[in-house]
Amino acid sequence: MINEYIQSNQQRFLDELFELLRIPSVSADSRHKDDVRHAAEYLVKKLKDAGADTVELCETAGHPIVYGEKIIDTSLPTILVYGHYDVQPADPINLWTSPPFEPVVKDGDIYARGSCDDKGQVYMHIKAFEAMMKLNQLSCNVKFMIEGEEEVGSDNLGTFVKENKNKLKADVILISDTSIISLDTPSITVGLRGLSYMEVEVTGPNRDLHSGVYGGAVANPINILSMMIASMHDENEHITIPGFYDKVTELSAAEREEMNKAPFNLDEYKKELDIADLCGEKGYTTLERTGIRPTLDCNGIWGGYAGEGAKTVLPSKAFAKISMRLVPNQNNREITELFTKHFESLAPKSVKVKVTALHGGEPAVTPTDSRAFEAASSAFKEVWGTTPIPTRDGGSIPIVSLFKKELRLDTVLMGFGLDSDAIHSPNEHYGIKNFLMGIETIVSFYKHYSAK
Amino acid sequence: MINEYIQSNQQRFLDELFELLRIPSVSADSRHKDDVRHAAEYLVKKLKDAGADTVELCETAGHPIVYGEKIIDTSLPTILVYGHYDVQPADPINLWTSPPFEPVVKDGDIYARGSCDDKGQVYMHIKAFEAMMKLNQLSCNVKFMIEGEEEVGSDNLGTFVKENKNKLKADVILISDTSIISLDTPSITVGLRGLSYMEVEVTGPNRDLHSGVYGGAVANPINILSMMIASMHDENEHITIPGFYDKVTELSAAEREEMNKAPFNLDEYKKELDIADLCGEKGYTTLERTGIRPTLDCNGIWGGYAGEGAKTVLPSKAFAKISMRLVPNQNNREITELFTKHFESLAPKSVKVKVTALHGGEPAVTPTDSRAFEAASSAFKEVWGTTPIPTRDGGSIPIVSLFKKELRLDTVLMGFGLDSDAIHSPNEHYGIKNFLMGIETIVSFYKHYSAK
Repeated sequence: MINEYIQSNQQRFLDELFELLRIPSVSADSRHKDDVRHAAEYLVKKLKDAGADTVELCETAGHPIVYGEKIIDTSLPTILVYGHYDVQPADPINLWTSPPFEPVVKDGDIYARGSCDDKGQVYMHIKAFEAMMKLNQLSCNVKFMIEGEEEVGSDNLGTFVKENKNKLKADVILISDTSIISLDTPSITVGLRGLSYMEVEVTGPNRDLHSGVYGGAVANPINILSMMIASMHDENEHITIPGFYDKVTELSAAEREEMNKAPFNLDEYKKELDIADLCGEKGYTTLERTGIRPTLDCNGIWGGYAGEGAKTVLPSKAFAKISMRLVPNQNNREITELFTKHFESLAPKSVKVKVTALHGGEPAVTPTDSRAFEAASSAFKEVWGTTPIPTRDGGSIPIVSLFKKELRLDTVLMGFGLDSDAIHSPNEHYGIKNFLMGIETIVSFYKHYSAK
Repeated sequence: MINEYIQSNQQRFLDELFELLRIPSVSADSRHKDDVRHAAEYLVKKLKDAGADTVELCETAGHPIVYGEKIIDTSLPTILVYGHYDVQPADPINLWTSPPFEPVVKDGDIYARGSCDDKGQVYMHIKAFEAMMKLNQLSCNVKFMIEGEEEVGSDNLGTFVKENKNKLKADVILISDTSIISLDTPSITVGLRGLSYMEVEVTGPNRDLHSGVYGGAVANPINILSMMIASMHDENEHITIPGFYDKVTELSAAEREEMNKAPFNLDEYKKELDIADLCGEKGYTTLERTGIRPTLDCNGIWGGYAGEGAKTVLPSKAFAKISMRLVPNQNNREITELFTKHFESLAPKSVKVKVTALHGGEPAVTPTDSRAFEAASSAFKEVWGTTPIPTRDGGSIPIVSLFKKELRLDTVLMGFGLDSDAIHSPNEHYGIKNFLMGIETIVSFYKHYSAK
């Protein structure tokens, strides 16, 4: 019956999602402030249409939070659904094969910024809720909390949660903002890495110089920055920041063995990325490197002349964005401090450095023995025909540890994306199949969770 | 009399130069192709107005060469004046305090791209020639050869010189495209470094990836490029490319001592650049590092996200422009090959690299015991009141060695710029005083050269 409802309403579901995807709700860019609000208002309307009560646009010091609920029976369990309606910037725009905010379907995938992360996944929850309401099948109470600042650090969510603990009372938090391994191999994320995202600036001389006149005598900030970045990994790809690994939880041999049972095809992985070799920390597998080990990556670098041809400049400044993925029990604030101290100590006297923390979040693990996890597992098995594999994702959803701390609630990360969906990249997309099966799986989760 | 002529025509001289500076003849940028030709046509007209015969726009495979001559008596010596009318790109435009192609005078300096390098210095020669013609004082034959591709490697000058050896017959080459130490301390450049200018591209995965999902497992091209750049200098700031120093001419202790007699104030140097320390090859002074030692500098670097805020991307590609200054007897082609081979060898299997040579030129030294050098020295002494110091410049004018090889002619590098003129940088400028005294000094050179 759910199946039939989804099938007969499929085109409308997609039309509504496309309308949401057309709103460029880029939270990082102040020029899109009105668009972000517009996306929130659209969700308020859609939650009301689906049958939610007390739907509201909650103001914060930044972008608003959308809240809505349906309490059918206080003796039933309550699910708190979290998601976000803001999206990453779309640049580099020129690498998109279709405009990022004009969704199109190609080979069964919806191409648009936010199609997977996270508008498409949020919208599955609203449509699953609508279906249960229409078919009179809603078996749990539900609360929705959909924010507009996930891509910029959820700065105001903490205050909102602290000030609304009563309103947000629930039994479990359900989030779809992660990936499955593949359509054949569903999985549930049980660990997430944290993040410390830094910007560094290295200044040499007070102005751009002619490299012929000054080269060889005056420190070149690009050469120096390169040296500083290079020194942050040793020959085994260990990170060299003193104290960086001090709080890293090492998994037991048994835990590592379990984790490495997830299907992984090295040849396919390399072929899909067109690389001849991997590059990572010695002594760990690829799944471990992206799941349970902290990392340090440059996300951007710039300085000097980048135009056509040759310009013999010795630039005044060079910049980089450098981010670290953190694992339990590393702490974003501590790592940010360690990085800053170390980076400053690397600078020779011939340059000045400036370090700015741009963004951060804590790592998290979620339990695999809870009633909610079991319900999620059963839901996947029912809809996908196979028991999902618990995995650790490399990405970060800092709010998971916030919810644990403030609301004392565990989270189930029931995401339906694929690693190849190009989130945060040009040509982000989301499978229509993932979207529709996701709705079905969510409905199944409510059933299993209430039945336990 | 020359003095009076210059003074009474000063405003017109500047107006004419400003008209030339307004033409954005950026040879590196194909969008400015017509502007480059326009600048050449302007010089043709001005050479004719000044009294030159057989003035022509000589076509090449690239930008045209302006030629003009005045043969007054074949028994008199002939001076071949070389210069260039093309300019460096103006970016970063936003750092200019006035538009680069709208010349203005501030505190006695002309601010515009090309004001010093080399339009301003070329124009001194045309005006010195005009003055001698008008006052009937021309004492040598003169030939002008002014090219439009100096800033992009003078690719077509070699062919032109080879095909016009007879036309270009002369006794000496005179070039104003270098600097003096200061207005109080005139100097003549007697050595120039060569150049090998490279662009490198490092490719990791075939697309931008999410750094949370792939970070730690897939090679990050920015991290790798930084490592490769960093490894090119050792802890003593020696360049590590195998064979790089093999052909470097080491100066004798006496020669080094002589060279280090040039005035140099470390405190002022550091203060002027706002740096706390120098950074250069161990065992050499600043004058040696910029004069007689080869160097390797990054002129630009870019890759990944450089916008506002945090974007957790593991980029597909990173790029850098890297140039090496060469000294006698290094060879541009050999060094380019050594660099390419070494850079490729540094790349781990996890990335692909591409190395492109963008620009190059040979190092050169000019004699200090020639009749022409003595005439230049006398001219400076007459106009500036003090004997000029012979110096070695860090910059490169590759054509000096070309002229030696093809025309068997020595060059006198009688430039009037200052190192602080910001050539190749935002806010390039040239002193009006340098411009006017330069004209006077050129006229004096003709007199002394013909009198010997």
